[in-house]
Amino acid sequence: MRQAGRSLPEYRKVREGTTMLEACTRPDLVAEITMQPVRRYGVDAAILFSDIVLPLKAIGFDLDIVPGVGPVVADPVRRHEQVDAMGELTPADVPYITEAIGLLTAELAATPLIGFAGAPFTLASYLVEGGPSKNHENTKALMYSDENLWHALMAKLTDISAAYLHVQVAAGASAIQLFDSWVGALSAVDYVRYVMPHSQRLLSSLAETGVPRIHFGVNTGELLPLMRDAGADVVGVDYRLALADAAKRVGDSVVLQGNLDPAVIFSSPSAVRTQVDAVLDSARDLPGHIFNLGHGVLPTSDPEVLAAVVRQVHERTAR
Amino acid sequence: MRQAGRSLPEYRKVREGTTMLEACTRPDLVAEITMQPVRRYGVDAAILFSDIVLPLKAIGFDLDIVPGVGPVVADPVRRHEQVDAMGELTPADVPYITEAIGLLTAELAATPLIGFAGAPFTLASYLVEGGPSKNHENTKALMYSDENLWHALMAKLTDISAAYLHVQVAAGASAIQLFDSWVGALSAVDYVRYVMPHSQRLLSSLAETGVPRIHFGVNTGELLPLMRDAGADVVGVDYRLALADAAKRVGDSVVLQGNLDPAVIFSSPSAVRTQVDAVLDSARDLPGHIFNLGHGVLPTSDPEVLAAVVRQVHERTAR
Repeated sequence: MRQAGRSLPEYRKVREGTTMLEACTRPDLVAEITMQPVRRYGVDAAILFSDIVLPLKAIGFDLDIVPGVGPVVADPVRRHEQVDAMGELTPADVPYITEAIGLLTAELAATPLIGFAGAPFTLASYLVEGGPSKNHENTKALMYSDENLWHALMAKLTDISAAYLHVQVAAGASAIQLFDSWVGALSAVDYVRYVMPHSQRLLSSLAETGVPRIHFGVNTGELLPLMRDAGADVVGVDYRLALADAAKRVGDSVVLQGNLDPAVIFSSPSAVRTQVDAVLDSARDLPGHIFNLGHGVLPTSDPEVLAAVVRQVHERTAR
Repeated sequence: MRQAGRSLPEYRKVREGTTMLEACTRPDLVAEITMQPVRRYGVDAAILFSDIVLPLKAIGFDLDIVPGVGPVVADPVRRHEQVDAMGELTPADVPYITEAIGLLTAELAATPLIGFAGAPFTLASYLVEGGPSKNHENTKALMYSDENLWHALMAKLTDISAAYLHVQVAAGASAIQLFDSWVGALSAVDYVRYVMPHSQRLLSSLAETGVPRIHFGVNTGELLPLMRDAGADVVGVDYRLALADAAKRVGDSVVLQGNLDPAVIFSSPSAVRTQVDAVLDSARDLPGHIFNLGHGVLPTSDPEVLAAVVRQVHERTAR
């Protein structure tokens, strides 16, 4: 359950007096925050605590994560010279990641750790817009207006994300998840032309590591077969599409992950049970399924309800 | 082009010193603001200037439209007694709408005026959340947890929206558009159970008027055939799905409307032309097509670019 931490009192306590980016660069805090939902819920895997823009910060971008806003980039990237100036990421840029994963694999023992990184389109959107965006208008304008600049930017971001994920796998992550959070803002035609070649290069560079590659974005019902073809072993499905329908779209060569609506957590206990059952029912005939929310945990979620969801899934899948 | 006004200097000028809700209740302003994009762009139809929550304000809800935020409801609706207390809408609640449409039909002459209202789900979301919401968690929690209360609320909102649209048609609107802006946050299964019966009752109550009924929501690729079956003559398509693909989903019994990405307007002139051509190409074999953006006009759009889009569409469709 992505972003499970932010609804936990123990998370808010450990974060007191520490900015998001500080927390992401302190191995002890990364390990502690990653472990918190595992300890509390007994989930079957941990997902590394970090932020999608961390590797960009690590290679020198002047950006900050503003509480209540998200990542804010001082000088939005819209010109060739800015892209030319972008460096590469090496393990020495993120020593705290290697150290945190070392601490985590020791503590997690048999429980797998999922590494994570943002996919090039989503990182590009943050860099071009200068922050979170509802409509991605500057990103799309650049993409449509200057295809060379667009592909140059995407190629650099692909290298950065790939290097960042390789660091995580080398340090002990046993799976990776590539988040293309905002790519659902594109049509399939645009995805194929402007995004897919880069995501494909990124995911295939990870094939040699042998770890499962999970690929996810919100609002990507129309893009699922393309995201599979980009080289995913597991495709995440948001809550808008029943898993059985998603399976019809992607076939059985990939495992599906998802897709309880995070808003369901705010319902009555019996309604939550019904909705969890509906997800499991929809997944019954799939060749493989990883139960998850269809999006991140909402900050005001009640941890008791999330605990009940995990218990229900474990009880039903243990049968 | 919905919300075309907000990018126009003449709109900002005429709105100076007037709140959104005041502007929506002054017939002279409603008529003037509705006419502005028609005069500037020479589009083929006008769409009534108003706000989706206006009929709720008109029947006594304590709500305001806060600049930069959107509609804010003082006492969010979550209990049976609040729904029981909800009144009906009569023409006497919105005399300024009747008057504004009278002014408009006189000025518009042969150019059709499209009336508009929010669909029950989207209105319910504003009332239950108390304002705009990214995740609609309170709305969905109510929907999943108390189905009786949910349907009671939706039934009241259906009556209100239907009555509001009947006022508009009686006053001279020659088509209506029912906006279910947020319904794309639901899966098809939930749409069928919690929304469709109400939208169906609403749209069929308008059948007797004989005016074309346009139905639109963002992110509704998965819901298009259901929105058609709810009783639409025209289904709006957002920019995520090519019109040709949307047509495969809905068949040829409805006309499609859309779907240039509003973000395209920020691209270079040649990129804008290419994207407009792509929409028209995708619509070429459709039995009917209304060119439009795939979502509202973004406030920082350049009116000159929008004017060029209209010219291009007119030139190409006049051939």
